[in-house]
This record gives sequence, C-alpha cells and structure tokens, in this order.
Amino acid sequence: MRAWEKNIRRVEPYVPGEQPKVDNVIKLNTNENPYPPAPKAYEAAKAFDMDKLRLYPDPECSALVHSIAQYYGMDDNEVFTGVGSDDVLAMCFLTFFNSEKPVLFPDISYSFYSVWADLYRIPYETPALNDKFEIVPEDYFKENGGVIFPNPNAPTALHMDLEKVEEIIRHNQDVVVIVDEAYIDFDGRSARELVHKYDNLLVVQTFSKSRSMAGMRIGYAFGNKDLIKALNNVKFSFNSYTMNAPTLAYGVAAVEDDAYFKECVEKIKNTREEAKKQLMALGFTFPDSTANFIFATHQRVPAKTIFEELKKRNIYVRYFNKPRIDNYLRISIGTDAQMQALYAALKEIVNA
Amino acid sequence: MRAWEKNIRRVEPYVPGEQPKVDNVIKLNTNENPYPPAPKAYEAAKAFDMDKLRLYPDPECSALVHSIAQYYGMDDNEVFTGVGSDDVLAMCFLTFFNSEKPVLFPDISYSFYSVWADLYRIPYETPALNDKFEIVPEDYFKENGGVIFPNPNAPTALHMDLEKVEEIIRHNQDVVVIVDEAYIDFDGRSARELVHKYDNLLVVQTFSKSRSMAGMRIGYAFGNKDLIKALNNVKFSFNSYTMNAPTLAYGVAAVEDDAYFKECVEKIKNTREEAKKQLMALGFTFPDSTANFIFATHQRVPAKTIFEELKKRNIYVRYFNKPRIDNYLRISIGTDAQMQALYAALKEIVNA
Repeated sequence: MRAWEKNIRRVEPYVPGEQPKVDNVIKLNTNENPYPPAPKAYEAAKAFDMDKLRLYPDPECSALVHSIAQYYGMDDNEVFTGVGSDDVLAMCFLTFFNSEKPVLFPDISYSFYSVWADLYRIPYETPALNDKFEIVPEDYFKENGGVIFPNPNAPTALHMDLEKVEEIIRHNQDVVVIVDEAYIDFDGRSARELVHKYDNLLVVQTFSKSRSMAGMRIGYAFGNKDLIKALNNVKFSFNSYTMNAPTLAYGVAAVEDDAYFKECVEKIKNTREEAKKQLMALGFTFPDSTANFIFATHQRVPAKTIFEELKKRNIYVRYFNKPRIDNYLRISIGTDAQMQALYAALKEIVNA
Repeated sequence: MRAWEKNIRRVEPYVPGEQPKVDNVIKLNTNENPYPPAPKAYEAAKAFDMDKLRLYPDPECSALVHSIAQYYGMDDNEVFTGVGSDDVLAMCFLTFFNSEKPVLFPDISYSFYSVWADLYRIPYETPALNDKFEIVPEDYFKENGGVIFPNPNAPTALHMDLEKVEEIIRHNQDVVVIVDEAYIDFDGRSARELVHKYDNLLVVQTFSKSRSMAGMRIGYAFGNKDLIKALNNVKFSFNSYTMNAPTLAYGVAAVEDDAYFKECVEKIKNTREEAKKQLMALGFTFPDSTANFIFATHQRVPAKTIFEELKKRNIYVRYFNKPRIDNYLRISIGTDAQMQALYAALKEIVNA
C-alpha cells in the first residue's frame, strides 16, 4: 500500500440496478416509470434559453421549491430540493444523524441506508421485519440517534398505515424521523400531513418514479423550517449549485402538468392490479403492493433462475442476493404491452 | 433548544456570489463566461430525446468521461466527473482527507476549502501567501494530511509556474495533492501532464468558466486510476446518479466544439489584457492575472465604496470582507461592451 492510500475513506458502495446499454430491452429492474415525462416538461425544454447556461443556476432553487410548496400546500421554507431523493437523503444523514446512539431502519429496506451510515460512520441498528415483511412499530420505541424507513417499504412494496407511522414518530420526538416516500404517489396516505404536527419529521419524495423524471434527478423533502434551514446550511457547505438550470425549469413545468401526472399514476395502478392477478395465476406470491413494483417469489422456481432466464429473453427485473430476500424478484410495473411480454416469458420459465 | 436539534451538524455555509434576479445588470461577480455555450451544445439540446428522462441516467457518466479523457489524452479510468468542480472537490475532501494531520491550503484562496474541512471535521492549516500574494512552496513541505491549492489562485488570479507546483507535489508524495485548476484554460501550464508521474496527484477542472456552462454543473478530475476508483466508490456511496441525462449529452457536445472553445478563451484573454491597461490608467493595481478575472485595489478609493457605487449603477463585482483582502475587488472579465461600461462607471467613481 502506498503511503497516500492510508487516508482514503474505504467504503462499500451502493450498487444501482443495471442500466443496459443495448436497445430492445424490457427494463423492469429500477422502478422507472414506463411513460414519458409530462408534455409541459417538453414545452419547457423547447422554451429553455440555452444562453442562460453560461450563468450559475439559482442556488436556492426558488422557482422549483415554490412550485412544490404550492402544489402540496406547504410554505416555501418547508421544502428542500436536491439531485434526486438520494441526494436529499444523503444530506439528511449528514445533517441529522450525528448521535453516538444508533440510527434505526428496517433490516429489509432501501439498501442505500447502510451505505450512507457507513460513509459517514454513523452507528446503526436494523430491526427485523416480521414474517409478513411488515415493519413492527414497537421495534422503534427504544433509544436511538434517529429513525428512517421507506413507506411503502422497498423492496417489499408494503405500505404501513399512517396511524402506525405516527406511532413511530410519537415515540421518537427527541430525534429526527425521516419517512422516505419515493413510492407514495402510487397509493396510501403521505406523512406530509403530519409535518405541522411534529417538528422533528422529514418526509422525502421524488420525481423519479411517479413523475417519470429519473433522468433529470429531482428529489425533495418536507419538514418544519428549522429542519429545512439545517439541511440548506449543509447543502451550502457541500455544493452551492446542486441543481442545474434545465432541471429547475423542467421540474416546475412537470408539477404544473397535474392532469398528466394523475393519468399516468392511474394507468400504472391499473396495470399493477392486473399484474397481481397474472402473477398469482402463474404461482407467485407477494406482499400486497401499493407501489409501482411487486416483490414476488415463486412457489417452485428459484428467483435467481427466473431472473437469469428473463435476462436471456431481454427482460430485466431486479434480484437481490441478500439474506431473507434471495428468493424474491422485484418487478417494476411497465406498460401493459411490456407486462404481457413478461407474463408470456414467465409462463415459459415456470412451466419449463 | 429542542432535543432533536442536539444532533444537527452545525456548519458555517459557503456564501456564493449574488445571483441578482433583475435584468439589465452587468454581472462581473461570479467569474462566469460572458459568451454563450458552444453551438454544438445547442444542437445537442435540440436533438435530446426527452422520452429518455423517464430512465435513470448512466451512473458511470461513460460518454462524458470518455470525451474528456480523449480530448486531454488520458484513459477513461483516469477521469472522474461531478456536478461542477464543487461536487468533485467535496468528494475529494471526503475521500482523501482522512488524516489526523492538518490539510494545508493558502490563507487567501477559494473560500470553500475551509467550509468543506469544517463540514467533514478535517483539521487544516492555512499558510499565508507572501506580500505579493504568492504561494510559498516551502510552506507546504511540512508534515500534513493532504494539500490543495488553486492554480491560478482565486481570488488573486495569480499563476504559479508548473516547476513550483511540481516542487510542492515532490515534497508531498505520502498524501494526496489536489491542484484546483478552474481557471487554467485562460493561461498557464496545467499540472495534468504530471498525473502520470505522480500517482498521488489530482487535477480538478470545470466547464463553468472557460466552457460557458456554469448553469449545467460539470466538473472533472484527472488522476491515476486508483485515485479515480476511490473517488467513484465514495460517489457511489453518496448518490449513484449525480449527473442528469441532459448534462451528459450537452457536456459531450461542448467538448467536441473545440474551435468555439478556443475562440472564446482567446476573446476573454484579449479583453483581460485591455482591462489591465484600463484599470491601471484609473489608478488600480493588481497581481498579474492569468484567469478570467482581475483582483484589483485602488490607490485612493476603498474597495467597499467602489463595490457599492458600482452596484448602484447595476454593475456587480465581488467584494470579500476578509482580512488582507478587504480592500480588493474581484472583477470578472465580461464582453468588451460590458467592460467599457465598467471603465466609464469606475472613472466616475474614482474621480468623484
């Protein structure tokens, strides 16, 4: 080892789902939206003044913050925006999880949580989901340095009722509690309505799933103004200009296109409900999904085999080679046509 | 103080130069390029397939990395890209500066360095520039946890010969040395040519100044493949998808437009040389600039007065209310027309 290597921060990086560089792939592996972004975003792109790129973007992202705040009935100073919800969450870990006590999150959950904790050397504990893959609220009642969980949870797709979410928050008013709602638009009640009741609550959402803009990188958080101020202070200690000028413009336009947004979400929900029937008929079981994906296991054929067989047929789903979930597949909801191709392939595979 | 506030990371954030929201302003305060981005970037914007935004962007930024590597004659695995050079530098601090010993950077320098050090709780020392505002290489020969300095330095605009840069690197082969070259395209020799000689050297550059793309957020670093690998591991522990799809596309196009790039740089250099004459005639002195800005003090009128008077006339320059430099103004090089307006205003102000 060379001397300068001694001081390198050693990390086990998060491994994102594969982004295949070939065409003709049915991509159901990273929970992207199968429908294109809102028409108004296209208009914003056409109208965008490229000359402006010579200037720094607005460091406060005011226009985007304002449009999100307005849409959700919050104040501008209750909204933080970042480069996808990953950026927002990474900033949250750095800003709020500075206790000697462990941060708590579920054992089966978004796998980036432990990566951020390791990156920033934050102690953590991971209470186990029960056998139905449900979060057990009581597990989060003990002393801790902060709490974070997704709702619906990923990769299980299971939703927890807002009453239970509130139970966890109520028992944790001395630390910051983060509810990560990347998939909430596909069903269920957001904890956003609790933000004015609990000043230690942050609710994180994203444009990557329900708003079809994974490629643009927009995430945001709701919280009381002191939490948002603390987040902004850390952001301004990291990079003043995280969100570029086109992002701010297209983001605002996407929020304005409410009818399109609701229509897409509705289509995906319908396809998901049909997918539940089809998968069940093929011998799959799964926790009931309220997200844009289904976390399924087959009664006979191992998940890994199905994953590999699908890949051979140019259909990508997500397989996690991890304890307790290594016989499951996370299948994103695509268009009806993509799903038909999936069912046909699965039929071949499970009946082989 | 509420209980949950105890664990908030307290920081003193970096304060970026003002981005006035009114029009008709002559903006010479954040070293932006007065000329628009490359025509090929406009073409890339027109050709950009908005449908793709529903998908995550390439997490490895392969196309952009490859185009930068090719342009500068490096291997792809010797290039890292980020959301402006601030993102690249923030990642560098987090990745490489993990020693108990202090990191060294000049007392008068890019003011973000101390902010990142504070954010990540990295000890640091700031050797003083000499009376001519020059970096004294010998100050960097002592034991340390890493070295970083801009070349040309900011906000002084002073360039250090590559021989002296190399002297600093030669004396610091046990730590990572970062040369921050945001302004190198406006003159002087880049330390890039030393990357194959010193495996502990990182050279950081940006599209924000010479390539007129501050609004798009593109920065990059050159270094040996092990340094770049370590940076990528930390990046993938922070946010897999930092650079959005349009950024990657427009960035590649900008690099391809070499003639335009060189032409813009040449124009700015000519305007800068003329500005030196004009400012001198008006009673200003300054370190000789090799950047796209001039760091000037007036023999009679206080910098703060000039700053305020210019602002009244809708001309923005940068004033730092800091020890040793509180009688200086950092003036970005604009178009010839903008500079004529500046000279006229300065004439009024200094002769008032």
